[in-house]
Order: sequence, then C-alpha cells, then structure tokens
Amino acid sequence: MLKAGIVGATGYTGWELIKILLKHPQVEITSLTAKVERPQNIEEIFPDLQGRISLICRNLERVEEVSGKVDLVFLALPHKAAMGFVPRFLQGGKKVIDLSADFRFEDAGVYEKWYDVKHTAKELLKKAVYGLPEFYRAKIKGAALVANPGCYPTSAILGMAPLVKKKLVSCESIIVDSKSGVSGAGRNPSLDFHYPECNESVKAYKVSSHRHLPEMEQEIGKLAGRKVEISFTPHLIPMNRGILSTIYLSLSADFGEEKIRKTYEEFYRGEPFVKVLPEGCFPATKDVQGTNYCQIGLKVDERTKRVTVVSAIDNLVKGASGQAVQNMNIVYGFQESEGLDK
Amino acid sequence: MLKAGIVGATGYTGWELIKILLKHPQVEITSLTAKVERPQNIEEIFPDLQGRISLICRNLERVEEVSGKVDLVFLALPHKAAMGFVPRFLQGGKKVIDLSADFRFEDAGVYEKWYDVKHTAKELLKKAVYGLPEFYRAKIKGAALVANPGCYPTSAILGMAPLVKKKLVSCESIIVDSKSGVSGAGRNPSLDFHYPECNESVKAYKVSSHRHLPEMEQEIGKLAGRKVEISFTPHLIPMNRGILSTIYLSLSADFGEEKIRKTYEEFYRGEPFVKVLPEGCFPATKDVQGTNYCQIGLKVDERTKRVTVVSAIDNLVKGASGQAVQNMNIVYGFQESEGLDK
Amino acid sequence: MLKAGIVGATGYTGWELIKILLKHPQVEITSLTAKVERPQNIEEIFPDLQGRISLICRNLERVEEVSGKVDLVFLALPHKAAMGFVPRFLQGGKKVIDLSADFRFEDAGVYEKWYDVKHTAKELLKKAVYGLPEFYRAKIKGAALVANPGCYPTSAILGMAPLVKKKLVSCESIIVDSKSGVSGAGRNPSLDFHYPECNESVKAYKVSSHRHLPEMEQEIGKLAGRKVEISFTPHLIPMNRGILSTIYLSLSADFGEEKIRKTYEEFYRGEPFVKVLPEGCFPATKDVQGTNYCQIGLKVDERTKRVTVVSAIDNLVKGASGQAVQNMNIVYGFQESEGLDK
Amino acid sequence: MLKAGIVGATGYTGWELIKILLKHPQVEITSLTAKVERPQNIEEIFPDLQGRISLICRNLERVEEVSGKVDLVFLALPHKAAMGFVPRFLQGGKKVIDLSADFRFEDAGVYEKWYDVKHTAKELLKKAVYGLPEFYRAKIKGAALVANPGCYPTSAILGMAPLVKKKLVSCESIIVDSKSGVSGAGRNPSLDFHYPECNESVKAYKVSSHRHLPEMEQEIGKLAGRKVEISFTPHLIPMNRGILSTIYLSLSADFGEEKIRKTYEEFYRGEPFVKVLPEGCFPATKDVQGTNYCQIGLKVDERTKRVTVVSAIDNLVKGASGQAVQNMNIVYGFQESEGLDK
Repeated sequence: MLKAGIVGATGYTGWELIKILLKHPQVEITSLTAKVERPQNIEEIFPDLQGRISLICRNLERVEEVSGKVDLVFLALPHKAAMGFVPRFLQGGKKVIDLSADFRFEDAGVYEKWYDVKHTAKELLKKAVYGLPEFYRAKIKGAALVANPGCYPTSAILGMAPLVKKKLVSCESIIVDSKSGVSGAGRNPSLDFHYPECNESVKAYKVSSHRHLPEMEQEIGKLAGRKVEISFTPHLIPMNRGILSTIYLSLSADFGEEKIRKTYEEFYRGEPFVKVLPEGCFPATKDVQGTNYCQIGLKVDERTKRVTVVSAIDNLVKGASGQAVQNMNIVYGFQESEGLDK
Repeated sequence: MLKAGIVGATGYTGWELIKILLKHPQVEITSLTAKVERPQNIEEIFPDLQGRISLICRNLERVEEVSGKVDLVFLALPHKAAMGFVPRFLQGGKKVIDLSADFRFEDAGVYEKWYDVKHTAKELLKKAVYGLPEFYRAKIKGAALVANPGCYPTSAILGMAPLVKKKLVSCESIIVDSKSGVSGAGRNPSLDFHYPECNESVKAYKVSSHRHLPEMEQEIGKLAGRKVEISFTPHLIPMNRGILSTIYLSLSADFGEEKIRKTYEEFYRGEPFVKVLPEGCFPATKDVQGTNYCQIGLKVDERTKRVTVVSAIDNLVKGASGQAVQNMNIVYGFQESEGLDK
Repeated sequence: MLKAGIVGATGYTGWELIKILLKHPQVEITSLTAKVERPQNIEEIFPDLQGRISLICRNLERVEEVSGKVDLVFLALPHKAAMGFVPRFLQGGKKVIDLSADFRFEDAGVYEKWYDVKHTAKELLKKAVYGLPEFYRAKIKGAALVANPGCYPTSAILGMAPLVKKKLVSCESIIVDSKSGVSGAGRNPSLDFHYPECNESVKAYKVSSHRHLPEMEQEIGKLAGRKVEISFTPHLIPMNRGILSTIYLSLSADFGEEKIRKTYEEFYRGEPFVKVLPEGCFPATKDVQGTNYCQIGLKVDERTKRVTVVSAIDNLVKGASGQAVQNMNIVYGFQESEGLDK
Repeated sequence: MLKAGIVGATGYTGWELIKILLKHPQVEITSLTAKVERPQNIEEIFPDLQGRISLICRNLERVEEVSGKVDLVFLALPHKAAMGFVPRFLQGGKKVIDLSADFRFEDAGVYEKWYDVKHTAKELLKKAVYGLPEFYRAKIKGAALVANPGCYPTSAILGMAPLVKKKLVSCESIIVDSKSGVSGAGRNPSLDFHYPECNESVKAYKVSSHRHLPEMEQEIGKLAGRKVEISFTPHLIPMNRGILSTIYLSLSADFGEEKIRKTYEEFYRGEPFVKVLPEGCFPATKDVQGTNYCQIGLKVDERTKRVTVVSAIDNLVKGASGQAVQNMNIVYGFQESEGLDK
C-alpha cells in the first residue's frame, strides 16, 4: 500500500482528494495536515466523512513529522505556501504532487510577475513536470515533482489543443470565455462568495487579468511552437462545481466541421478521460460532475470561419484532485483510472 | 387612464407586464387573455398577485372582444402567433407593442429563413419600429406598432453600439458570449428546463444558430453601415433571471481604455436606463435584477488589442416587459421611466 | 418630507430599507451610517443602487451628527449595539424604529438570559411598542420607539394568532418548524454561509434554542392570556429570501376546517398585508418575495385532530424592513401601505 | 456475475441504479428498458454515462425478452405499472426488487384507498418483504420480492424507530416535517417542477395527505405494536437531492438527552449505513449526498418534554436506488455495502 499524505486537507481540493483516495485500492491515507486551531478528526471537519475515515488533522509544524509517515504528499495549499515545503519533502526522498501554481511555470519571471511574489525554489522548476497527462504522460512516469495544472487551464488546453497542435487555427484569434462554480474560489469565507451575494447572479471577474491566463499561454504556446496571446474572461456561476469553457478560434483555412471533429477524435483516441461528443452535442457541467472526465463539443460556423469549442470538467476533479490522483497513478505505474470511478 | 390589454398574460413576460403596469399611475389593465383551459382569475394563476389585481384571464376568441376594452395591447406571445393578431388590432385603431420576433426584421426573408415560417403580414414590417429606445426614440413616439427587441439582442446591442457606431472596432471580430437565466426559456415545462436537469449545471445551446443572432446582425449592421457577421453562443445558467453578455471586439487602432470608456459615457449620456460603470468595475446580473437598467463594464487588453465589454440586464425587464413599458411611455409621451422603479 | 436616517445601512435590512424608502413619496433619506472602513457612496457599496441614490455612508461617530439630519432613525444593527444608541436618539427628540431584539422583551430578564448580555436601557422597555401592526396598531401610532419584530416570530405569530386568541387550540401543543433563506443570517461572511457550504443542502440549526423562541412565547402568551412553551426548529434553505413556517397545533375540540378557515378570515379582515388562502391552497415563499405580504394556508386533519398552518413571508420585507416602514407609516399617520408596493 | 435488469431505466432512480451497479464488482447490467420513443443507447439518454456503459434501452414489450437476460430485475416504475409486471417476472423464476409502492402494504385496502386503484396482485403482498434492512434483514435474505421503501418513510422510520420501539414516546404525538429536493418528484416535466417555478422558493404540498403517510403509519405501528396516526407535511426545497426529516415526539416520561442518545446508539450499533451524531450536531443533507448513509441528530427539550430528531438521507440513494442495491446485496449474500461507496 502506498502511504499518502495531504497537506492542506481542510480545503475543497483536500476534501476531494480524501474521498477519491478512500476508493483507491492501492493507497492508504496516513497523514492529514492543515492550518487548524487544534488537532481535530477529519470526520468532524467534513461531516460527510463520518464513519468513512477516522484520522486526526494537525497543524503541519515540522515537515519531518509528515515525511516519516508518507511515500507521497499532495500539497493542496495556496500558491506561495507550497514552494516553502516542496524542497524539504523532495530532500526527504518523498514524491510530491503540488496542486498550487508554484511549479507550473518554466520561466520563473512569468510566475513572479503574475503572482507578485519572489520564487524561492527556482532550481526545482526544471525538475517539475506539468501534470496534464494527455500531453506529458511519459515525463510524469516516475517524476518526483508534479505541478498539477490549474482548473481553467485544464479545461481550456484540452478544449483547443488539437486545433493548435495541428495548426488549423490562427494563434492570434484565441478567446476563452469560462464559467466556473463557486467551489473554485476555495473554502475561505469572504463577501464575494457569501451565499446571497453570488446566488441568483452571474458575473465576470479578473477580466484579462486572471493568473491562469499565463499558464494557458505557456502550454498553448508550446503546442503551437510560438508565442501566443489569449483573451480570457472567467465568470462566476451560482453552482457548486463545474467549469464550462467556450473557446472561439478562427480557422486558418476553409475547414469543414467533419474534418475538425475527426481531428479531435484522432487526437484524443485512447485517452481514458477525454470524450469528444457527436455532432450537434455540447456538454453540460452536470454531465461531468463528480467525475474525472472532460467532455468536448464543437461547431464550425461557415459564415464567420470560426470554430466554437465547448469543454466541460468538474473543477475539483479533472480540474484539481482527480487529475492529481491520475498523475499519482501514472507516477507509480498504477492503472491510470484507478480510484477515478471510470 | 390609458386602457391596456395583455395577450399572452400567463407567461413570464405577461406576468412581469402586469406587475409593472400595476405600479404605473397612468395605465389601467382592462383585458387579460391567454391560452387557458377555462376563464380564471389572474390572481389564481399567479398567486403572488393575490389581493393586488382581480381580473379574469380568458381565451382570446375574438379580437374585437379585446379591442373593445383597450387603447393599447401588449402581445406577449410566441413568434408566429403574434403576426396573426397584429393586423386586426391595428385595423381596430389600437396601438400594439409586440414582444415577439414577428415584426423585428426589415427583411421578411431573413425572418422566414431563421424562423422557418411564412410571414403573413409583410406589409406591416415597414410600419413597425424596432423598440430599442436608445436608438429609435424619435420613431417610437406615436408609433402604432412597436416590435419590442429580443432579450439577447438588447444586451448585446447596448453593449457594443458605441464601438461599432464610432467605428473603433473591426466588424469582422465580434463575438458575443451570453449567459441567461432560465426564465428566458418561457413558462412551458419541458425536460430541458425541469429543475434537476438545469440546476447545478451550465451549458451552451444553439451554438451559432440561435434566432437572436440575425436580429443582432441587422441592428449592428445598421449602426456600422455595413453587413456584419457575429459569433454568438447563448448559455443556460442556473438562476431565474438575468442576462450577462460578454462581448469581445478587436480595436481598429491602438486605443487606450480611457478613450473607450469616454466614448461609452458620451454615447449614453442622459440615457435613463444605461449605466457605464467606472474603471475596474463589471456588472453582476443581481445588480439589475427586477430593474429596467442595463449596466456596462469594459476592459481594454493592450496585449491583444481587444476590448472585452460586459453588459447585464434583467431578461424579463429591460430584455422584455420593462422595455415594452418604456416603449409605451415613449409612444404616449409619458415620462419615460414611469412605472419602472427608477 | 420626513427626513429618515439608517444606522447600519450596509447590511441586508439596511439595503432593503433604502430600496423601499426610495419609493416612498413622503420620505427622504438624509443619513446613512454603518461600520465602514472609509466613507463611501452607498451606490458603490450596493451597485444595484447605481444612479438611484447618491449618498455617502459614514461611520457613526457621534449620535448628534445623525440627529441633526433626521426626524426618524431606523436602527438596522445587531442586538446589543442598538441599545447603546436608542436612548441618545430619543433624548434628541428623534423617533426610533429599532430592527434589533433589544427592545422587544417586556421582561429584561428574559432578554438577558437568551441574549447573554446585560440590558443597559431597561427603563425604555416599557416605552417601546412591539411593532406587529396587526396587533398593536393603536399603540404604534405616534410611538417614539418601535421594536420591530424578528423575522421568525412575525411568520409564526401571524400564522397561529387567530387560533390561540380564540382558544381553539391547546397551548401545550404548539410546534413551529421554520424554513429560512440565507439572507436571514445577515451579510457578514462566515463558513456556514459560504456558498458551497449551504448551496444544495438543507439543515436544522439552533434546535429548541434559537433566540426568536422566547419572543414568540412572549407574544403568543399575551394572546393566550397564559404562559406558553413552544417547540421551534429553524432550518436553513438554499435560497436568498423567504421564510415558510409550518405550524402544528392540536385542536381543543372537534372543529372542522370550515370553522377554522372562517376564524382566520374574520380575524384578518381588512388587514392590508395578511392574506388567508382558499381551501387546498398553501403559500410558496416566491409568492411573497419582495413584498410585505404574509400568506397563510391551513388544513385540518380530522384523523389526528390537528391543524397544520403554513405561513410565508419575505424575511427582509414583512420580516424586517417592510414591516419597519409599515410601522413608520403608522407612527406618522401615512397611508399604511405607502412605499410597500401594494 | 449476477445479471441485473432495470425496468424504467430513464427516470432518476433508474439512472442512479445504473451508476451504482457500474461500481458493483459482482453485478453486470444486462437489460435496460423504459418507455422510449425508439431504442436508444443509455449513454445518449444520460450523457454523463458517456464511455461508462454502452447498452440500448428499449421499450419493454414482452416480459420474456427481459427475463431471458437477467437473474434479477429492478422495477423503477410508477406505482400501478409495477404490479402488472411483478407476477410475470416471479413466474419466470426471477427475483424482483420493486421501487414502487405496489407491494409495500400488508393490507391491500390501505393501498387501494390511498393510491386510488385496484390492486391486481394481492396474493403477492404476503410474499413481499418490506425492504428496510435495519428491521427486516433476515426476511430479505433470499426473498423473491422486495418492496423497496419510499424515500420519506425511510427517513422518518429510521429517525424515530428507537423511540417508538423502546416505548419512550407517546404514539399520539408524532409529527414529521420533511424537506425534499426536487428529484424526488421524478423526471417527467411539469409546471410545478419547471425551474423558475421551484427555484428560490420553498413550499408545503399534500399537507396531511401524501401517500407516504400510510406507509409510515404501517411500519411505525408495527414497531409500536399498536395503531399509530402521524401528522406528516412534505416540503419542496430548491435543491436536486436530499431529504431532511424533522420529527417531533413527546417523551412518555422525564428522560434526559443522554438516555435518549444512548438508546439510538445501541439500537443502530453495527448498522453500516446509520450514523447517530454526537451531542449538539445535526445533519445537513449535503453530508449524505451521493451516499447510502442516514445521519441522525437529536435534542431533548426539557421545557416541553419533547424530543426533536433530525434525519438526513439522499432521496435517490438510501431513499431509493442505494437501498435497492443494499437489499440486493442481502438477498444474494453479498457484502451489504458492496457498490455503495462505504
């Protein structure tokens, strides 16, 4: 049995990790830590875990205490907090899957500009693998440090990768309009996410300035083989979970819908968690809720020579904890969908 | 007191019309008709009207029965049903504000293609005025037939008009991504709008094929002075009311945000129901819920030379019944915001 | 024009007061105060007020500053905070409508026990009038200090008063099961009311220990002419507004439904804001949303000799700010429903 | 591998059965039928099943067609439809777990009165076992026909059984106030469950007249050893899933909370799916969402000598399909929690 620890167990991604790992036959959760006022059984913190797990969640005071109990650690922490812990876990010979943004960027300068903080472990950026299995499976295998992708980038990159990679669209034309459930904002209460403030309403936020934008641009740029600039607007939707990304791209030639759909189907053939929907079908976030799937629908508009792609994921599963477990499965050579309710 | 009738009183726009007109000091509701199994007091049909109005809603069997009781009639009917009634009300000397799509198009061919039905009153298309007061106030004054705009077109046109009219953006670049509450789908039950099917989910529908698209293109085309083709994707949001339209446009030159914002402020100066928000502010649909306002926020992205505009309305008020009353106020020379809770 | 101030303008009841008073033809809002970090225009704090009111909301530092600008002050404060201000406003010759619990109890000991705080203005308890117009209209007329009732008590008392007053039910048998929207918890963010924590869920809270229980018992006791003990369970419902109270009472004799319904109809005859629904009809909270109405439905079960009464109000209107304005109208001899959208 | 069929596969309980059985290592789904216009792959009907199961759902025309493919059949049909099929499946030697009400009553007369239909297979009522494992586990073992309980009765019976069985409460005093998510109303669209009609609202329905009432009374009566009459009010809550039942009972003597809690803990000791919460804790429906658990909290009010019990289940899992699979596990001697995500 692989012994896994979760640092940041009291947030939504920590909670989702626990629930997924409880179903995983090859993993045992051996350590739970978080910023807590006092040590507390996790089943008191998340009452839905009543009777399903009994483990005390403690403050992480010394990395060694955790290291001594685990083979692998999931860091479900805010950015900046993660980079303090990662070097110490790696030095202790532990594998790390980091759900924060701290090791997602190849260029520390981009990270420092968008996250407005000094990177304190730059030397590890080269070692980190960006954990999008559909593109980096080979590198993830055996990796010591996986940087688990952001939720918006996961939905956007999966949604447009085939078109960019196959050079069927103009790289100047990319617009990503994303709609996210409120759990994406985390579990810390604030006025913006107070129930009556976001219920029965939809709004845009961080227009053209969200931190997931440079992450998309890095990865799409790598697929395109050139620098890419994207327009990205995230929106807050009154629901708990799910991200729907509607992506607008200009075709680089007069391609019909059949060719485009075929490109997607070939590109994702064999992928366990990406489903390309048939003609005329578009995903709803409820169709991926609680699962690790990404569903993709698309339509070519011959009038405007534009293709509209719609991709849906569960932000806490394929957009975070499910993908983290998928990465763990690849790192250790388990079946890739183990624990993920295929 | 102006005597007003509502045909189609049992739908959401009929209901909203009743509630607005009850607050209007110069109007009396004298006739309510709809497809009903038996004559029924409207306060039984809409229990929130208990004690606020007592009037029997009947089947409309003969237009004359209604005509005899009203000066003005609001048609809150599905498209196609409306065009059968309009000529007869006009012949009876009544004024008509039609909330359907039947008289919104200058070119009957466009209507017939997108709505897939023969237009039976083409001769009236010239007589009809498109009821977007911000652009056609002078023509609406005294008009006999007002074609009240669609909800999506209202939000999209108000959102981009200043840029198009002032030729600050490329007309090839227009993308409208709209998010609507479920009341926009009307009050007839169907699986798509059954509570558990649309709650906790967001989806795109009628991608590049929604009937409000040619309506936007007609009006934006008139403002631009040229043919315009738009990419438009509507989305269904788990909330009752509200439309948020996120509009992406490429600037035709290197304009800064200050110039663009100033253009909007001047364009809408004096408009009672359009509010341009300050820098960094974007509207939420809750901020216009139950009101006739359209709030607009915008951001220029100097990296992509694109401007992102976000406009918010209440689909049943500025997007339907409120705008219909605003049009009525203009037709009759009442104060434009009378009854509209300014 | 009556000059009115609101202390605690940035909470939900303050916000609702502003929106109601803006529609009131005999009142002008002349002062807004609240705990704010810096003076800020209220239309920035509540963006839906954009263009409808422009007034700076300041910290209340000296009571005199407010007193100098108003005839009447609404206190929309947490309990305990209110009792500090009330004496000073009254000494300044101002009228006060207090939305907190501080002056609702005749017996200071009951208040001190349930609210766990010393009462610092006991001498005013006798002067205060409990602001439930249906029972205390004559005393409210001209009163200097109105203690506006709690939201749960308003729905529960209106729901059972006719039966208790007419002695048709056993006073040992009263059970009140209430369901409230989340705005009832106020506007301060906390984990319990963080969107993903209360969305898609219902729960009971403060079972048999909610502070509105002694308030119900006081008022029902006065109607009954004897001490009454009630079982009361409030529940949190995933919606913004509304309270539905389901009240179970044992009939003191073999009364049929017709007699019971007639008792209600007579009891509330002429009341502008209480509607007794016909046989077989029960209210939904949406039918009173945004209004000052209380709708009541009931059913006698001849098997169990019990009557089940269901009452619905909007917690922010009849349950708080609307009732406060109704009280103001009575105090000043305005038409009782002025501003309340009848 | 046990071969299982689902009749009525296109409703919510059918859908939930599919998802649970897909996770069950000893069961294979071999037949799906329902009222469908044309044979259709179930993954088209429920797009969340995309890639997880591929099986054509057909009209059930001849029972033999299904019988030939299955060992066991789940009937997820409306009442009345089920009793036509049950005899024929049993004659074919198949086991049946019926999710309808048709075989839940020992007295056909009670069924016929409350369901207003003639029972056409009365002779099987004796053979049927009421499928509440916590009380009838021994009889379920090997049973040919299990009548799976209703959702409200499951939550109410589990909530009050220890008190009734141990005779700690007065049987005249039982009041059940239940709150259900909308999926409980099934998947057929109607105005009552049209999104904008039930969103942002709560209401009572079928007050003292819901068909689950006699079912509760039968089972509680058996536990009490006497005839019992209950007051029951179901409420519709704007959420997809979950039932919370708040149960009020008068203690038959002066018992303290400790004694009552201990009674529950002993009563349910060893039960895999019933959890009694610690003092001061009450369940939220989200804490059992998607699980087969029933969580129970309680409070004794010494003032009123009443105990308030709150029980929470997921109406589609412990209230329907999960319990059906739990019953199947018992019938066949599988581990009782197999497939149920313990």
